[in-house]
Amino acid sequence: MNPIDASQAQVDQVLNQSIEAFFIYRHTAPSERMKFLSTIAHQLEQYRAQLVVAAAQETHLPETRLNNELNRTIYQLESYGAACQKGYFLEASLDHDALTQPAKPDIRKLLMPLGPVVVFGSSNFPFAYSTAGGDTASALAAGCSVVVKAHPAHPETSTIMANCISAAVALCGLPAGVFQHVYGASFEVGQWLVQHSHTAAVGFTGSFTGGKQLVEWAAARHNPIPVFAEMGSLNPVFVLPEKLNLSHAEIAGQLVSSYTLGVGQFCTKPGLIIGVKSNAWDNFLAALSALTSSINPAPLLHNGIASAYKKNTELVLQQPGVSVLAQGSTPSKQGEGNPLIVQVTAEDWLSNQLLQMENFGPFTMAIQCNDTAELLAVAKHLAGQLTGTIFASEQELVEYRSLISMLEIRCGRLIFNGVPTGVEVCKSMQQGGPFPATSDARFGAVGEDAIRRFLRPIAYQNWPDALLPLPLQDKNPLAIPRFKNGMLQP
Amino acid sequence: MNPIDASQAQVDQVLNQSIEAFFIYRHTAPSERMKFLSTIAHQLEQYRAQLVVAAAQETHLPETRLNNELNRTIYQLESYGAACQKGYFLEASLDHDALTQPAKPDIRKLLMPLGPVVVFGSSNFPFAYSTAGGDTASALAAGCSVVVKAHPAHPETSTIMANCISAAVALCGLPAGVFQHVYGASFEVGQWLVQHSHTAAVGFTGSFTGGKQLVEWAAARHNPIPVFAEMGSLNPVFVLPEKLNLSHAEIAGQLVSSYTLGVGQFCTKPGLIIGVKSNAWDNFLAALSALTSSINPAPLLHNGIASAYKKNTELVLQQPGVSVLAQGSTPSKQGEGNPLIVQVTAEDWLSNQLLQMENFGPFTMAIQCNDTAELLAVAKHLAGQLTGTIFASEQELVEYRSLISMLEIRCGRLIFNGVPTGVEVCKSMQQGGPFPATSDARFGAVGEDAIRRFLRPIAYQNWPDALLPLPLQDKNPLAIPRFKNGMLQP
Repeated sequence: MNPIDASQAQVDQVLNQSIEAFFIYRHTAPSERMKFLSTIAHQLEQYRAQLVVAAAQETHLPETRLNNELNRTIYQLESYGAACQKGYFLEASLDHDALTQPAKPDIRKLLMPLGPVVVFGSSNFPFAYSTAGGDTASALAAGCSVVVKAHPAHPETSTIMANCISAAVALCGLPAGVFQHVYGASFEVGQWLVQHSHTAAVGFTGSFTGGKQLVEWAAARHNPIPVFAEMGSLNPVFVLPEKLNLSHAEIAGQLVSSYTLGVGQFCTKPGLIIGVKSNAWDNFLAALSALTSSINPAPLLHNGIASAYKKNTELVLQQPGVSVLAQGSTPSKQGEGNPLIVQVTAEDWLSNQLLQMENFGPFTMAIQCNDTAELLAVAKHLAGQLTGTIFASEQELVEYRSLISMLEIRCGRLIFNGVPTGVEVCKSMQQGGPFPATSDARFGAVGEDAIRRFLRPIAYQNWPDALLPLPLQDKNPLAIPRFKNGMLQP
Repeated sequence: MNPIDASQAQVDQVLNQSIEAFFIYRHTAPSERMKFLSTIAHQLEQYRAQLVVAAAQETHLPETRLNNELNRTIYQLESYGAACQKGYFLEASLDHDALTQPAKPDIRKLLMPLGPVVVFGSSNFPFAYSTAGGDTASALAAGCSVVVKAHPAHPETSTIMANCISAAVALCGLPAGVFQHVYGASFEVGQWLVQHSHTAAVGFTGSFTGGKQLVEWAAARHNPIPVFAEMGSLNPVFVLPEKLNLSHAEIAGQLVSSYTLGVGQFCTKPGLIIGVKSNAWDNFLAALSALTSSINPAPLLHNGIASAYKKNTELVLQQPGVSVLAQGSTPSKQGEGNPLIVQVTAEDWLSNQLLQMENFGPFTMAIQCNDTAELLAVAKHLAGQLTGTIFASEQELVEYRSLISMLEIRCGRLIFNGVPTGVEVCKSMQQGGPFPATSDARFGAVGEDAIRRFLRPIAYQNWPDALLPLPLQDKNPLAIPRFKNGMLQP
C-alpha cells in the first residue's frame, strides 16, 4: 500500500470538517460516548483477523503479541467509555451559599473538551498507541473530534482501523468529521496539521526528535496549543547489594526478558542497569550475559528502526570504557535486532553524554559503580524518565531513601522488585514523566486519567438551571459525584 | 525604595536554595502546609497597616479597596491551606485486584509537586495576585518552593509581604529557601529566573506582551517547563434586545460601575459591549454615556500604565468609524485615567484588528450591530477570553443557543445578567481561558483548583505499604477520598 500524502488544501478541509463535527459531538451525552467507544471496540473485534494479518506484515510483530495488543486496545476503548459514564473526569463543581451576606454568585464549573485533536500514533504499538489507540480513545471520550495521521510504517493497518472507527461513527449517527484519517509520510503534512488554526491539541507517541518537533511547531503558532508527546526514556533499574546477594539469577532473568521483549521496542524497556561492584554483581552480570546469549535476533519494526539501532549501537561501542558483555545467539540478518548488553563504569557513563541517550531496540547497558555514592551520582545525573525501578530488600529501600527521592523527582512511575515493561491500563497508572520523557509531565497517556489532557474548565455564573449542561443542573440528572461548596458529594 | 536588581549569580544561588528547600518541603504533611499557609495569613493580618499604607502609596489604589483585597488574600491562603487538609487535589488512586488471574500489579498514584515555582505578580492586585497572592499560595499548597520576583511598581509592598512569608517560614521551622524574594526591574532577571535549570514552573499575571515573553523563554529551554500566564481579555458583554427593552437603565448602571471599577484596571473589565441597534439600544447608549460623564478620573497604578492607556486610547480614536460617546466628569491630570466609552459599528470593528486589542484602563467600546447575524459574526471573531457575559431574558438565552456555543468555545467563564468583574474565590471559579487570555486553558488561577497547575502524577508499583507516601497507604491514614480500582471511595 502506497497511500498518497494529503495536500495542504486537503488538511484544511479535514480540519474544517473536524471543527464542525466537534461543535455537534461535544454536546453528546456520556451514554452516547460510551456507546460510540464500545461500537469502535466491537468493529475492531469484527476485523480482528484482517487487522492482525496486516499488522504482522507491516510491523514484523508476531501474531500472538498482536492479538494481545488488540485485546488491550479494545479494553482501552471500553474502559474510557465507562469513564464517560462514571463522570469523574467532568470534575463537576457547584458553589452557592444562599446564607452568605452579601449573597455570593452561583458559580458552577465542569471540564469541557478542547476541540479537534490531531493524533500521531507510534510504530511500536500498531493498535494500542496508533489510529484507534489511547490518544484517540481519550480524545473521543473527552468529547473532542479527532484527526489521525496514519503512521507511514503501517498504513494498511491504520486504514483498516480508521475504517472501523468511521463505521462506528456512522452506526452511532454521528457526523463523519468526528474522526478523520489522513496520510502523510512527509514532514509538511505533520506541520500543517499541528499549525492549522482549528487544531486545539496534539497527541504523539514516538521518538524524542519527532516529539520535540511537534512541540516546537505548536509553540510557534499564533496561539500555542498543548502537545502531549510521549518521547523516550532510559528506564533505569537500580539493583541494590543485599537483594542482589539473595536473588541475582532471578533478577537477571526478569531483566533479560524485559529488555528483549518485543525486540526491545518498548518505551519502558530497561535501558540502564545500575549496581555496585561486588561478587554478587559479577555473578549477576554473568547471568545477564548467559541469558542474553540464548536469545535469538528478531526482525525490527521497519528499516528506519533497524538502521537507527545499528548506528546507535556502533556509536555506543566506540565510546571509551564500553565493553560488550554478551550478544544474542546468532549473528543478526538485515533488518533484525540482535540482543546486546554492554558494560561501562559509572565514571565513564557520567562523563559521556553519548552514553545517556536511548538506544531503541534489544539493547541495555550495565553501569558498574564503585560505591553507593557513585550509584547516587548516576541517579542524580538522570534526565526525566517514564519509569525508575529498584530491586532491593525492604530494609534497603528504607536505607536508600535518598535514591527514592531522586527517582521521585525524575520519574513518572516507580517499580519495586519488578520490571518496567507491561503498562497496566488502569486509573492509577502513570505513563508519563518529566521532560524529555514527555512534553508535559502534568498528564499521563495510559488509563482513564489520560482523558484529562483534552479538557479544560469552564464556569457558569448565575446561569438558569434548565440551560446549564446536564452535569451542573440542580437535580444532578447524570447522578455523578460533584463538589458542593468545595466538599465532595459522592 | 530603589531596590537593586539581582545578579545572575544571585539568581543562581536563590534557585539552588529553592531546590534544596523543595526536597524537604515537598515531604511536609497536609496539616503542616495548612498551618504554614495560615501562619502567612496571620502575619499579613499583623502587618495590615504597613501593607495598606505602602500599597496605597505605590499603587494609588484607595485604602478601602486595599483592605478588601488583603482580606481576599488572607482568605485565599486559608482556603488553599484547607484544601491541603481535604486532600482532594492529591487525586489518590489505588488499583489492585487480588482476584484477577494472572494477578495484576499493585499500582497506586497521587499528584506530587513539580519543584521550584517562579512567580511574577501583577501590578493591579498588589496583594491578591502578587507576592503573597494566588500563585504563591497555590504553589506552596502544592508543596513547591517559591521564588517571587518583586513587581517593580510596588517593591516596598512586595518586601513587606515577603518578610511576612519569611517570618511564617521561620515560625513553622521550614527551610528558608521555601520562599525567596528577588528584585529585578530589568528584562534579564526575568529571563534568568525562567531559564534556570532548577525552575520547574512559572506563574504570571499581567500583560499579553509580558506573558508571551515568559512562554517563549520557557519554550526555548533545553527542557521546556509549564508557564501559567494569565494575560489579557476583552471580556465581551452581549446585550440582547428583549432584555434591553426591559431594563436598559439597570444594565447601563451595572456596566459603567464595572468598567470603571478600580479605574478599569481589572483583567475582567468589560471592554466590549455588543448589541443590535434599536430604540432601546439608543436609550442604553445614552444611559451609558450619562453615567460615564458622572465618573471622576482617578490615578492609574503607575506611569507605565498611564502612558499605555493614553497611547492606546489615541490609537483607537484615530480608527475609522470610532466615535466618542462620553468621557469622565473632568479632564484628567497627568497619571490619571479618565473614563471613556466609544462606539463603532460591527462592520468597522470586524475589519480592524487595532480595535480588537485590550485597552487597560477605564475604557469600553460599544459595538452596534445591524442584526443578529452581525452580532453572531462579532462573537465568532473573538479570540480567547477570560469571561463572556450575556444580558438576556431566559427565553432569549434559549433562542441564542448558537451565541452561547460560540462563547463556550472562547471563554473560561460565562456570566448571565451580571458583570464579569468580581472573581469569587471558590472551587467552582474558573479564572482562565483559551489563548490569548491565558497560556494554558487547561488550568485556572483562582480557587483551590489553581493548585493543580503545580502538580504532576507519580505512580508506585508493588511498593511496600510502609514506604508509600501517606495518602497511598492501605489504612488511608490521612482519611482522604481515594479511588479504588477506578471507583471513588469517599
